[in-house]
Amino acid sequence: MTGAGTTTPLHIVVTGGAGFIGSHLCDVLLARGHQVLAIDDLSLGSRANLASALAQPGFRLEVLDLCDRGKLAAVFAARRFDAVFHLAANSDIRAGMSDPSVDVRRTLDTTLATLEQCARTGVAQFFLASTSAVYGETGAEPIDEDHGPLLPISYYGAAKLAAEAFVSVYHHQSGMRTWVARFPNVVGPRATHGAIFDFLAKLERDPTCLPVLGDGTQCKPYLLVDDLVEAMLVGWQRLDGTHSVFQVGPDSMTTVATLAQEVVRRVAPGARIVYSGGDRGWPGDVPQFSYDTSRLRAVGWSTPRSSDEAVIVAIDRIARERGL
Amino acid sequence: MTGAGTTTPLHIVVTGGAGFIGSHLCDVLLARGHQVLAIDDLSLGSRANLASALAQPGFRLEVLDLCDRGKLAAVFAARRFDAVFHLAANSDIRAGMSDPSVDVRRTLDTTLATLEQCARTGVAQFFLASTSAVYGETGAEPIDEDHGPLLPISYYGAAKLAAEAFVSVYHHQSGMRTWVARFPNVVGPRATHGAIFDFLAKLERDPTCLPVLGDGTQCKPYLLVDDLVEAMLVGWQRLDGTHSVFQVGPDSMTTVATLAQEVVRRVAPGARIVYSGGDRGWPGDVPQFSYDTSRLRAVGWSTPRSSDEAVIVAIDRIARERGL
Repeated sequence: MTGAGTTTPLHIVVTGGAGFIGSHLCDVLLARGHQVLAIDDLSLGSRANLASALAQPGFRLEVLDLCDRGKLAAVFAARRFDAVFHLAANSDIRAGMSDPSVDVRRTLDTTLATLEQCARTGVAQFFLASTSAVYGETGAEPIDEDHGPLLPISYYGAAKLAAEAFVSVYHHQSGMRTWVARFPNVVGPRATHGAIFDFLAKLERDPTCLPVLGDGTQCKPYLLVDDLVEAMLVGWQRLDGTHSVFQVGPDSMTTVATLAQEVVRRVAPGARIVYSGGDRGWPGDVPQFSYDTSRLRAVGWSTPRSSDEAVIVAIDRIARERGL
Repeated sequence: MTGAGTTTPLHIVVTGGAGFIGSHLCDVLLARGHQVLAIDDLSLGSRANLASALAQPGFRLEVLDLCDRGKLAAVFAARRFDAVFHLAANSDIRAGMSDPSVDVRRTLDTTLATLEQCARTGVAQFFLASTSAVYGETGAEPIDEDHGPLLPISYYGAAKLAAEAFVSVYHHQSGMRTWVARFPNVVGPRATHGAIFDFLAKLERDPTCLPVLGDGTQCKPYLLVDDLVEAMLVGWQRLDGTHSVFQVGPDSMTTVATLAQEVVRRVAPGARIVYSGGDRGWPGDVPQFSYDTSRLRAVGWSTPRSSDEAVIVAIDRIARERGL
């Protein structure tokens, strides 16, 4: 057992810790007995996501822009951390398409600033949340982690690929152990955007009609955030390499049409679904991708539910939270 | 014939145009009848490299830091350019290893600033000078352009991979035609660093002894700068794709030991060669790599000389320039 076993409590930083995935990760790390410092500028994240974590003695939230290098250095100087999970990013791919500097600053520069502090203070473990978007358009064949070429079509994907590249160098230069996990579409409570989030918001405005971007055939793997966090920790604890790149996802995929139908079925039965047409929702959207996850499966991980099941569970939980 | 054929004069920007490779490119583009604007901050480049170009009416040099976005925007607003060759970078990989921000700023940020102006002003063609360093350590087997994974071990390699990623997105978003050429080790007059440059400088200080970093077994493909520029233009003119990634190199490789022996033979016969030991010259140095160049060969390119021949010609030309 490598990484942070369930037995040794570690001091762990989670950047973006007040965000969608970050806050779920904080909850699980705390439940396993670790001391957790969440760093977040609260631009996309919120204190509400950390309601449970903030009530625990092993948890602290530092409200901070990671690009403020002076303040970040002070945080890392104040105590020695064992591991950093770097989840801070502009997670709204679509919004970033109108201005490349958003992803350069919030996705790449935050990674560079965090890596710098880790190297400077001897943090032994660095875990990067990356994305399927590094590949660009790959078609329906499942791709593995060594797939090339990498031709991203969103600034988010480019910034994450750039972040991965610098993690590779820092690993090589400083000897810190590093993990790069490429995430699929992740769904669940606390999400701040994405198709389910958009569809629910649209149906709250007009419960009779759901306008959907694209023709509904976009087809991707969806993973419930709980299952993602479990997979992250399995990869962290069990993968042997000193620089482990691995992808996480279900075996199956879900079409946007299915997703729309399930949202309508749950919160607005009878609503008409109207497709805008075209093979994708917006420029930078990858219409289809599929993962080979044998690297993670080889160390015993498997997803407990299909992509469709993840979507249905997520819709139900989010709808309940919204009182729908 | 696509790109800039030899028949249609174009208005072309060469960033890093006063540098080693950039100045050679300016010379050739001018010889083919194009109008050339070189942009360079003269930090690594020099006016001396452009002595011949500056005497020609179709040439202009703008001394400018590309990251000065206001000034760069003014240059691109003043006239419409047909194509941009982006060669500006921190070309000294070894120097960049002590401070990642050097490559982030000079290699990546200059690319982002230039891409931004190209997209804003409708430049139709963007050519990125990239590098074998994007691959990291690959071993002796020749790799092709679709090779994965990409695990750079130098900040230079990471910054160039990041630059490639953003070129991919800009291509996809703006429709500009893009080329990414991955260079091997390039040798010839006007070089500002590299093994030949270092060895000559050492022998000027002490003609009796040549200390060499590593054990001499590092083995890489070397290309004469003239042949590189020719290959760049063949790729630019003849490759069909709207986003063409291609590598350039000879069929063969040269060991550092051979390189050291050839320098000694030419300028200091009898000097002792003393190896420091170890499989590489410095952290971030890739000890061995080999290219598959079938993509460029398929459109008719072949290198006119072997790696050893390129090294010998380069040593002789540089030594003559230095009066040795």
